[in-house]
Amino acid sequence: MIQLIENPKKETWTALMKRPEADFKDVEEAVRSIVDDVRRNGTNALKKYNAILDGFQGETLLLDEKTFEEAENSLDDKLKNAIRHAARNIEKFHTSNRPKNEKVETQNGVICWKKQLAIENVGLYIPGGTAPLFSTVLMLGIPARIAGSKNVFICTPPNASGKINPAIIYAAKVAGVTKIYLAGGAQAIAAMAYGNTEIPKADKIFGPGNRYVTAAKNLVSASGVAIDMPAGPSEVLVIADEQANQRFVASDLLSQAEHGIDSQVICLCISSEKAKDIQTETMNLLNELPRKEIAAKALANSRIIVLDKLNETIDFSNLYAPEHLILACSDAENLAEKITQAGSVFLGNYSPESAGDYASGTNHTLPTNGFARAYSGVSVDSFMKNITFQQLSKEGLNGLAETVITMAEAEGLDAHALAIKVRTQK
Amino acid sequence: MIQLIENPKKETWTALMKRPEADFKDVEEAVRSIVDDVRRNGTNALKKYNAILDGFQGETLLLDEKTFEEAENSLDDKLKNAIRHAARNIEKFHTSNRPKNEKVETQNGVICWKKQLAIENVGLYIPGGTAPLFSTVLMLGIPARIAGSKNVFICTPPNASGKINPAIIYAAKVAGVTKIYLAGGAQAIAAMAYGNTEIPKADKIFGPGNRYVTAAKNLVSASGVAIDMPAGPSEVLVIADEQANQRFVASDLLSQAEHGIDSQVICLCISSEKAKDIQTETMNLLNELPRKEIAAKALANSRIIVLDKLNETIDFSNLYAPEHLILACSDAENLAEKITQAGSVFLGNYSPESAGDYASGTNHTLPTNGFARAYSGVSVDSFMKNITFQQLSKEGLNGLAETVITMAEAEGLDAHALAIKVRTQK
Repeated sequence: MIQLIENPKKETWTALMKRPEADFKDVEEAVRSIVDDVRRNGTNALKKYNAILDGFQGETLLLDEKTFEEAENSLDDKLKNAIRHAARNIEKFHTSNRPKNEKVETQNGVICWKKQLAIENVGLYIPGGTAPLFSTVLMLGIPARIAGSKNVFICTPPNASGKINPAIIYAAKVAGVTKIYLAGGAQAIAAMAYGNTEIPKADKIFGPGNRYVTAAKNLVSASGVAIDMPAGPSEVLVIADEQANQRFVASDLLSQAEHGIDSQVICLCISSEKAKDIQTETMNLLNELPRKEIAAKALANSRIIVLDKLNETIDFSNLYAPEHLILACSDAENLAEKITQAGSVFLGNYSPESAGDYASGTNHTLPTNGFARAYSGVSVDSFMKNITFQQLSKEGLNGLAETVITMAEAEGLDAHALAIKVRTQK
Repeated sequence: MIQLIENPKKETWTALMKRPEADFKDVEEAVRSIVDDVRRNGTNALKKYNAILDGFQGETLLLDEKTFEEAENSLDDKLKNAIRHAARNIEKFHTSNRPKNEKVETQNGVICWKKQLAIENVGLYIPGGTAPLFSTVLMLGIPARIAGSKNVFICTPPNASGKINPAIIYAAKVAGVTKIYLAGGAQAIAAMAYGNTEIPKADKIFGPGNRYVTAAKNLVSASGVAIDMPAGPSEVLVIADEQANQRFVASDLLSQAEHGIDSQVICLCISSEKAKDIQTETMNLLNELPRKEIAAKALANSRIIVLDKLNETIDFSNLYAPEHLILACSDAENLAEKITQAGSVFLGNYSPESAGDYASGTNHTLPTNGFARAYSGVSVDSFMKNITFQQLSKEGLNGLAETVITMAEAEGLDAHALAIKVRTQK
């Protein structure tokens, strides 16, 4: 049963915002030993863990062209159309609003500019298991292609006979990713982080995964390998006013809850009646779901909270910094202007989270766990880095000389001053 | 003596690109214990380490207004003018080219947009010690102000009598940072990461530091606190053609070398004569420097390499991915077009690294250690995060319904499909 709390005092908000804690302590040691082994012993260690952990003993890790074709032929047209439709929208949104970097003359003869370039080697981790996350292939592969990354590849765990879900393969094709390696878990993250004879070294690693994968990403990131963002359990916060449809809201809460037993859903209402209706409807719809056991456990971490005013719900939400925020309110557009902390925001009754999870065009790889305070969801920028350039004329340098020499000497860095003096005779 | 290597075989390039390794193993345990203690015991633990490690026993950590005034009065006008001059250029460059995020209708009735918002709580770490890095105060404080961060504060270690360099205080004032806390080392990083009764919790931590500071930043970053970028020793790569001025190049190599004994400088020449001249001039100029002992040790990690063609020097540089790259070449503009991996690039004979280090306008907080392959230097974007928004009309959702339902069901996420079905009756 999802808990209902009416008009809690502000002092209790922090407790109400408490998230299920992701604790990696129990897997950290195992992950560290796998990552070190794969870093030192390369492909052999990788294959060893493929065999031990996934029961996959194949010698060839790179998927061949024939398998791509077979996957495409094996999928029905409806799913292929859906994947292509989603891909078109994702491409359209992600291509828009790319920065134009123009040259700036900060002072006479001092010209500075910035250039955005693709990260060259990009590794995408796609989990296997019961839910084949082919939508994530689109969400990571399409922005990587738009960025212009040269070498984009996927690691994903196969089953014991070396097979992966054909929808993953087809989505990779649609996204333009041609290299899929059969490797999963912490060993795949280590292989991408350090490279070996089978799998190229990635400059940046993207993608979701279980606790082993997440712990391995944290570990390699501490050694300087870039990762998309820190991971935590998925979450949604829904703000519902009097006009919200309880059936719509309940289905949104459940679509978050079905992700995993550590998911969290929070619903803020300004009407006690509506809160009760949503609670009832949520428990009703729960029973229809194939993943109801998972969702029921997640609902135990979850709460419906009644607050006095809409402004209070916005304050609560900005403090919580939810990954997904649904504004099921008649005044959604104005409320959206007040949102300062969230991963992705859904306005009104016809913008369910699942639209953005799959096909509206926005990315579904978003900061969880309050990380939205400092991190952004994946975008084309996530696959690019900036280089700054500057070109000074002799006159330009003259105009800076005294300032640089004065500051460098005050910092005790005389060679920095010397580099100006030898050029300007100052 | 800086080593000179003529026409090395390509197989040896990797060895020639080897960087001095930053190893935190010996400080990791101490840092972990400090960070844990400050996380658990807050202000008391912070003050304890201030006393033990910096000999500072002050009860008040926040600098008062009077100290700001005194600092301003104590500095000579020349330095104040220099700081304000640098600040103007930094502001001008960092303000330019801000993204405009417009709404995109990915398909009929499906409107998506992105909004860039400031990270609210930003902690800047400024090292103390012999070289007071007030230039870094400008490089971090100014973009934070442009971004619009609400709560920007500095932690910096005082001396035993609680004093810090007045130039740090004045630069903070110019950058618009009004809160300076007297705390340094791993304990200051932990205080900013987790907050306590004296120091607010930062959403993101910026700034350079010694090995304790760097290890502490890595540690808190693994727990989800955002940091600017992973740190490593500073480095420059200079490409010099026949027309390069050996005195200019030598002064650039030395201005990098004086940063620390683990700095690395690499000079690529296409002429053996020029290489020898640069080597001689570097050793001559070295003797004039106050920090010559540090620079001499850094030169031992460093090399001048003669390669056949300019194109080869570009290939070498792109593989090395230097923090700073100086193109001391007549064809600098064309060569710059070929640069794909670097932190910041300086074109021609009158663009020394020190110009960008202080005052040309670009940022000096840049990715070292090859991190330029995936990371960018600090910019206004570093102080902002993006939120995506979407608003679908009923018709808009209808147009997505089949695609989302098909994909959600194929991923085994039936509640995701349900959220569409209840709204569209499909």
